[in-house]
Amino acid sequence: MPIRAVVWGENVHEQHNKIVAGVYPDGMHQCIADTLNTDPEITATTATLQEPEHGLTKERLAETDVLLWWGHAAHGDVSDEVVERVCDAVWSGMGMVFLHSAHFAKPFKRLMGSPCNLTWREAGERERLWVTSRNHPITTGLPDSFELEMEEMYGEPFGVPEPLETVFISWFQGGEVFRSGLTYKRGAGNVFYFRPGHETYPTYHNTHVQTVLKNGVKWAFNPMARIADPNIAPNVPVEAAPEKIEERGPKLHADGEEGFR
Amino acid sequence: MPIRAVVWGENVHEQHNKIVAGVYPDGMHQCIADTLNTDPEITATTATLQEPEHGLTKERLAETDVLLWWGHAAHGDVSDEVVERVCDAVWSGMGMVFLHSAHFAKPFKRLMGSPCNLTWREAGERERLWVTSRNHPITTGLPDSFELEMEEMYGEPFGVPEPLETVFISWFQGGEVFRSGLTYKRGAGNVFYFRPGHETYPTYHNTHVQTVLKNGVKWAFNPMARIADPNIAPNVPVEAAPEKIEERGPKLHADGEEGFR
Amino acid sequence: MPIRAVVWGENVHEQHNKIVAGVYPDGMHQCIADTLNTDPEITATTATLQEPEHGLTKERLAETDVLLWWGHAAHGDVSDEVVERVCDAVWSGMGMVFLHSAHFAKPFKRLMGSPCNLTWREAGERERLWVTSRNHPITTGLPDSFELEMEEMYGEPFGVPEPLETVFISWFQGGEVFRSGLTYKRGAGNVFYFRPGHETYPTYHNTHVQTVLKNGVKWAFNPMARIADPNIAPNVPVEAAPEKIEERGPKLHADGEEGFR
Amino acid sequence: MPIRAVVWGENVHEQHNKIVAGVYPDGMHQCIADTLNTDPEITATTATLQEPEHGLTKERLAETDVLLWWGHAAHGDVSDEVVERVCDAVWSGMGMVFLHSAHFAKPFKRLMGSPCNLTWREAGERERLWVTSRNHPITTGLPDSFELEMEEMYGEPFGVPEPLETVFISWFQGGEVFRSGLTYKRGAGNVFYFRPGHETYPTYHNTHVQTVLKNGVKWAFNPMARIADPNIAPNVPVEAAPEKIEERGPKLHADGEEGFR
Repeated sequence: MPIRAVVWGENVHEQHNKIVAGVYPDGMHQCIADTLNTDPEITATTATLQEPEHGLTKERLAETDVLLWWGHAAHGDVSDEVVERVCDAVWSGMGMVFLHSAHFAKPFKRLMGSPCNLTWREAGERERLWVTSRNHPITTGLPDSFELEMEEMYGEPFGVPEPLETVFISWFQGGEVFRSGLTYKRGAGNVFYFRPGHETYPTYHNTHVQTVLKNGVKWAFNPMARIADPNIAPNVPVEAAPEKIEERGPKLHADGEEGFR
Repeated sequence: MPIRAVVWGENVHEQHNKIVAGVYPDGMHQCIADTLNTDPEITATTATLQEPEHGLTKERLAETDVLLWWGHAAHGDVSDEVVERVCDAVWSGMGMVFLHSAHFAKPFKRLMGSPCNLTWREAGERERLWVTSRNHPITTGLPDSFELEMEEMYGEPFGVPEPLETVFISWFQGGEVFRSGLTYKRGAGNVFYFRPGHETYPTYHNTHVQTVLKNGVKWAFNPMARIADPNIAPNVPVEAAPEKIEERGPKLHADGEEGFR
Repeated sequence: MPIRAVVWGENVHEQHNKIVAGVYPDGMHQCIADTLNTDPEITATTATLQEPEHGLTKERLAETDVLLWWGHAAHGDVSDEVVERVCDAVWSGMGMVFLHSAHFAKPFKRLMGSPCNLTWREAGERERLWVTSRNHPITTGLPDSFELEMEEMYGEPFGVPEPLETVFISWFQGGEVFRSGLTYKRGAGNVFYFRPGHETYPTYHNTHVQTVLKNGVKWAFNPMARIADPNIAPNVPVEAAPEKIEERGPKLHADGEEGFR
Repeated sequence: MPIRAVVWGENVHEQHNKIVAGVYPDGMHQCIADTLNTDPEITATTATLQEPEHGLTKERLAETDVLLWWGHAAHGDVSDEVVERVCDAVWSGMGMVFLHSAHFAKPFKRLMGSPCNLTWREAGERERLWVTSRNHPITTGLPDSFELEMEEMYGEPFGVPEPLETVFISWFQGGEVFRSGLTYKRGAGNVFYFRPGHETYPTYHNTHVQTVLKNGVKWAFNPMARIADPNIAPNVPVEAAPEKIEERGPKLHADGEEGFR
């Protein structure tokens, strides 16, 4: 069975800005989904901010193997309830790929536990991404570096935790650098951040970027069964202890009582 | 100047449970602060849930080098505003030490970005902590292992991100293990989680535990100046780029415009 | 095409000790290879210390996707030339799984860059392995913990670098703990250390251990093409620089000269 | 007592190349030691390849808190015995700072367990180092970025293991990037790699570079007592087990026997 990817798009710039609509006539999310669907191992659909529950109902997430997220102008419009739902899905094993300005998306900030800030400049400058982890699965089919002739600059320091692995680092014409490909694990879920993708440039039409998107989905996918409740903290009664022990000492909790949250 | 530590205590069990009040007549927070104050390099005060703003005003946090946190029964009573304030302080460089049941404290969950769950049993069983990172500063003055005759059990899997370093791992009489000392960095702030400290046992009267608390405060302390605003994402105008570039291509943002959040 | 695994066995205890020969009549390496061969995605063969070049010629390694290594009594008899050859293969992308007493094998020490020491006791005590990274691929099909009724004890501190991920931690009846499943990346190669497997006990006949071995091989396998020479440090001439620059300043190297090693 | 630093210099270019001798009339090692000695918390001396045992006797290393290493043309002339001695010192708790072309020095390769290769170009191009870990102790007193007008280029992929923390990333005029500041722990020893320092440029006269050197020494320094033998793997007899157990099952080792190496 192919990996079930859902591309979540904020879908605001595409509706209000002629430049963006020109580059991505069906929306950035649709462009990314179309790309993923060229890979026989992936089947991708889309969801947008404007749909009820942003298109991310509990049922939909339960059937999503990997969620991709692009947001920018409307981070604040994303419902906190959906954010928690998305995080729960990640913790239970759903893979997740955050793209570009999603560095400030609510679920990314929530999963990182850090400011996720950076410096930026919109000047159509050249970006060159370098592979820093040889033969990392996300780099399959890529050369040691590739260029995007026009991109927005994102600069260090990038306010994220030290990753499991740094996969890409970007060079910018204006003199900055940025850790552009970072992997994390949160609960049972794999998380990948990938930097490029400013809305006014044709970044998601670039072949190398498309390769990274496909690889990223495959890397983030975890075929194991989802964890039913990723937040439970079960009590292990004395009689169920792996080794025989006898209860002793003062107790706060009554037998069988739930823990505090 | 000594390190300014603040020990935050939930202060609920001490007020409502005779056993806890007996072990910690002045509260757990005061016991921990007293311990820290025996070290000439540290000066410790306390704050509690019941104080206005839980004793953690913006001014107080600005003068706190390292915050220690013990909470259990009343995690949900901690104001979200204070939680965000605490996280901002960590991101700007304040050190933080989370103790025992603070694994489910709001600021810990917020900083980890993960479920922070575990298994548990309150049976007064023996715990033995093993040092797993030789000569880590937090282990100064400790033997390779030490015992707590009676403790609550916490068991793996512990739902936290892979740490910078695993400093302690616990063995429990009932057959479980737990990563009991973990270090993280979030923004500019050092974060240390330390497992022991169930309220009905005299854990914070144990010499080795007291050594870890002092070491933990010193490790978490960062003498560098706090970052004024740890969340800003400044625009770098074309004319301020480190390398001379010329603006080109389509733009979404007007000159000097703020970024989206 | 299935993953081509080679199980390297020191094959000394099996030849000289009746107990070991009784538990593993065809050798530990053959038992492990037989296990792997029950998985349709893996095809496993063996190599031993006693074969010319220890059975690990350059040609053999070039056709090996994942190498498993069990050694104990004869670490010192392994040729340094073969050790370098094995490390080169790992750096070029071959996966590698080190088992039990291979913590002191030359290639493991070489790849870790650290002492790899530990404490130990041979007393047939109970070991219980706990999963510490939920849904890690290496834990596929495993419960949260499993027991080995008789094993040798290995205790912390374990002298290895902080891993990419801690996958298993062991509890021992005698009171120690050990990080029993650790992942690393060295060059382009994935490395997995797995603790259990003392020669006098039937550990490799245990179903859960067998599951870990199969999962470990699949995790360590990297389908990407091997790196031709993992050690080269190529000069990038000025005219081949990605951005146009002009040479300036004093030079030590003549044009086209090789770098120093 | 100040931190006792030893700056090890290969001292070959300085003796044979007029350009290098002009920039560093007393040798690069002496320039670096002079810099460190301006800090009241550090007292630095030097050692060179040409001295007996390269100036690094067992006694000298026992009195060295932090060793800095610069080598390039004569990596192969460093005695393997001294390399092992240096690694033992690191594992026992000595701090170590590797500079520039020491990426191919024997002790660095030995401690990393990986190829440590990179791409390079000697063209006097501009390098700009960006801080990637805010308020990391090694960045004390530094701005978010600083420039070296002429440096040798080192490019990714850099063949080293994922670090504990990435502290600096370099931007190069010719289009490459490089992880220029990386921290590791090996055994009980802290290890810092810092990229700049090509012999024909006045890099070690740069104020920011000098700040990093001083910070690096302080970060690498571990005040705890050295571990007497960092390689021992002690047997824990049954009667010394932390928990009472009874020996059972078949044994390979006789009582009190040494383990295999």
